[in-house]
Amino acid sequence: MGKQDVGITVSKKEDFSEWYTQIVLKAKLVDYAPVKGLIVLRPDGYSIWESLRSTFDKKFAKNGIRNGFLPILIPESLLGKEQKHFAGFNPEVFWVTHSGNNEVGDRLALRPTSETLAYTMYAKWIQSWRDLPLKINFWNTALRAEIKATKPFLRTSEFLWQEGHTVHTTQEEAEKEVMKILEIYKNTVEEELAIPVTTGKKSEKEKFVGAVYTTTMESIMPDGKALQMGTSHFLGQNFSKPFEVKFADKDNVEHFAWQTSWGVSWRLIGGMIMTHGDDQGLVLPPRVAPIQVVIIPIYKNNEGKEKVLSKVQEIKETLESADIRVNVDDRSELSPGYKFNDWELKGVPLRIEIGPKDIEKQSIIIAKRYNHEKTSLGFTEIGKMPTILNEIQENMLKKSREQSRENSLEISDYVDFKLKIEEGGFLNSPWCGDPECEEKIKEETGADIRVIPFGSENTDKKCMYCQKQSVSIPIFARGY
Amino acid sequence: MGKQDVGITVSKKEDFSEWYTQIVLKAKLVDYAPVKGLIVLRPDGYSIWESLRSTFDKKFAKNGIRNGFLPILIPESLLGKEQKHFAGFNPEVFWVTHSGNNEVGDRLALRPTSETLAYTMYAKWIQSWRDLPLKINFWNTALRAEIKATKPFLRTSEFLWQEGHTVHTTQEEAEKEVMKILEIYKNTVEEELAIPVTTGKKSEKEKFVGAVYTTTMESIMPDGKALQMGTSHFLGQNFSKPFEVKFADKDNVEHFAWQTSWGVSWRLIGGMIMTHGDDQGLVLPPRVAPIQVVIIPIYKNNEGKEKVLSKVQEIKETLESADIRVNVDDRSELSPGYKFNDWELKGVPLRIEIGPKDIEKQSIIIAKRYNHEKTSLGFTEIGKMPTILNEIQENMLKKSREQSRENSLEISDYVDFKLKIEEGGFLNSPWCGDPECEEKIKEETGADIRVIPFGSENTDKKCMYCQKQSVSIPIFARGY
Repeated sequence: MGKQDVGITVSKKEDFSEWYTQIVLKAKLVDYAPVKGLIVLRPDGYSIWESLRSTFDKKFAKNGIRNGFLPILIPESLLGKEQKHFAGFNPEVFWVTHSGNNEVGDRLALRPTSETLAYTMYAKWIQSWRDLPLKINFWNTALRAEIKATKPFLRTSEFLWQEGHTVHTTQEEAEKEVMKILEIYKNTVEEELAIPVTTGKKSEKEKFVGAVYTTTMESIMPDGKALQMGTSHFLGQNFSKPFEVKFADKDNVEHFAWQTSWGVSWRLIGGMIMTHGDDQGLVLPPRVAPIQVVIIPIYKNNEGKEKVLSKVQEIKETLESADIRVNVDDRSELSPGYKFNDWELKGVPLRIEIGPKDIEKQSIIIAKRYNHEKTSLGFTEIGKMPTILNEIQENMLKKSREQSRENSLEISDYVDFKLKIEEGGFLNSPWCGDPECEEKIKEETGADIRVIPFGSENTDKKCMYCQKQSVSIPIFARGY
Repeated sequence: MGKQDVGITVSKKEDFSEWYTQIVLKAKLVDYAPVKGLIVLRPDGYSIWESLRSTFDKKFAKNGIRNGFLPILIPESLLGKEQKHFAGFNPEVFWVTHSGNNEVGDRLALRPTSETLAYTMYAKWIQSWRDLPLKINFWNTALRAEIKATKPFLRTSEFLWQEGHTVHTTQEEAEKEVMKILEIYKNTVEEELAIPVTTGKKSEKEKFVGAVYTTTMESIMPDGKALQMGTSHFLGQNFSKPFEVKFADKDNVEHFAWQTSWGVSWRLIGGMIMTHGDDQGLVLPPRVAPIQVVIIPIYKNNEGKEKVLSKVQEIKETLESADIRVNVDDRSELSPGYKFNDWELKGVPLRIEIGPKDIEKQSIIIAKRYNHEKTSLGFTEIGKMPTILNEIQENMLKKSREQSRENSLEISDYVDFKLKIEEGGFLNSPWCGDPECEEKIKEETGADIRVIPFGSENTDKKCMYCQKQSVSIPIFARGY
């Protein structure tokens, strides 16, 4: 293979979609499975998911949430128990009709989401206020048949996610939980993936059909399209009534419980790739990178080889003892240049180069992936590496915050809106709250309400569509 | 509920099966899902699985194995590519025939195991010797429709497991990998779950149909039945040929690769429950216990309450700082006796009791779950708690080794064999290697060859069935 085939052959600016596809495949995060719409995660892709899962698990545990397991098969009769909810998923459900050569009676759905199954169980487990709050999270996959073309991490018929389901004695406590989760989502995405998010509520039209309301976090991607990064739903008693999730309170009177559900998926990884990647390939934030530092020993015709390799080994051990994930690329048949390209494609945050001349100067070369900065670092300063990686992490967030700001506009005039939406971006525009205006805007511009940011309610502006008094300034955008 | 309903109402000796079912349900490890044959894992059950997963992950990583993700749907055409393998699973496969209201073309199987899918991908990923060894593990579930009655952890139509799939350039390297994995399995089960295992090979009749040979670890349960605890298969080139998993070697000649696959499932948890549980309920080995120490403050009419609770808090913090998982049961509406029973049912390895008198004596009472031993421990000795927990862990393995030894017999006479097999146990009996003798023994006694222990080959005895020269001394038993 020539360099042409190994590296990314299109630019992010010119063909964003093809650029994205090349990155996920060529950085070996993902491959297509034999069934249309399904993907396989290779170790470098799955490792990012494992890192996120471990961060979420720690935060969930601190918040009193524990993990459980639910089977993937849900009987049709159960799925239909909350009608609105069922109607939403019906066209996307995969159905099992046979086991071996026998027909199964009631058809079995492959879980599109687990509310119905979880709450059937919860109804059995909850008797009194002593059993509450009940807070369980499930790391599994959901299956929703996609008809459109597959985009790894963004649109697939099976996706990895977590779904949390909590039950509370009071509405207030449940609503607090919804917000606590959204906060965990926000700080994890910003701190781990270096992607800024805007949080707020979904409109009635865009909320999860089974919810009283849906809170969401949204990000704007460099191509101007919005990506929903996670949602946290207040379910009220919408499920507790049909599923009879009831508890006897301290006064021994029975009440229907208050519930929440919430989820993030591997879509977060898609957002990370789009936000940080460049024409050389993937760019990984240090916190989630499977390899944080790659060391490339450099020598010609074995000159100084032993000295170089022994220093490389020493540096590797120093970094590992500081809990840094290091790899030494000592493949002898490849040139340093080839290796540089290879690790840049894979997005490793920091590269160390070291040759005989560097040893003479008692220093190494460090190259930062996200901004291509190349500097030298004295041997005595290698202990600073954790700090350098932290700085990279913070600067990547700063950089993407700027990108996001540049892609956000405040627009009150609909003519202007229709022009600007063609360029993409988050458009903050006043809205009267009427679903009809929302629908018309969607029809005429392809943009929907991504999020009504917290604090954007109660404005004194006029709805950009109908000129009536507006109730909020939502973010409109075309989405993934 | 009276105490009768809360606790275990049958004895392990008298009704092992009912005892087991009561434990898994009443200790809140598991519940039945709405679909026959499927179960849900509650947090206390799932937590044991998480603990095992984390131990295996560390050992796998040290051995150069990384995790990946495979989708659950496999096209029928792919599943049938290795014919023997397919025939084995055919009657157990769940089939997806529709998505939404549309028929899918090629029927889709819910993964009964992933060899066919993994190797389709591997064939694309492997070009040359540089890509090998390729060692990926997948934590997922497998689905095999069970017709018989469900036994949580032991027989369910969907089960949690890991499946590892490795590819090598040489037969020798692949066979070494098979053994390395079996060794990881053995030491994890013995050290974490305190269950002794016997390792060896399966007979031709009992091996995984797609394998050249299957190595296995087997344990004997207290009811005299054998439990297969995990298998590690040498696949030879049985899959690499039909799936074209090929590599160009250093000489640029193309070869079919050598492969292994291996798995353990949540069945391990079933084995742990059966091995250690008693008439009071579950008994958890400290290493996998979600709660390792429960502290029960004891006082009457609030006398000395404050002193007790402040000492309890202090002990809790001391234990937590030693990385011990502690819970304080300060539920005010329940008696100490009720709490003792409750935590014994749940299998917490160590209970601390502390009341005003103990404070005067500057000591606490500690009660060990596995042997019901109750002793006092001075305040100054609380730092010994990690050692005490380690001792419990070791003694539990010693105890189950003895149980296992008592349940193992060497028998060369078939008349004797037929008598003894009625009492259950591992029967070590010489065999000529002929599948016909194996078949006859199975038909006449219900016992099959569980494992041919390493080192039991080449005997000078006579086959207990046909009296011909024996080739090994397998362990025969009736199994789960």
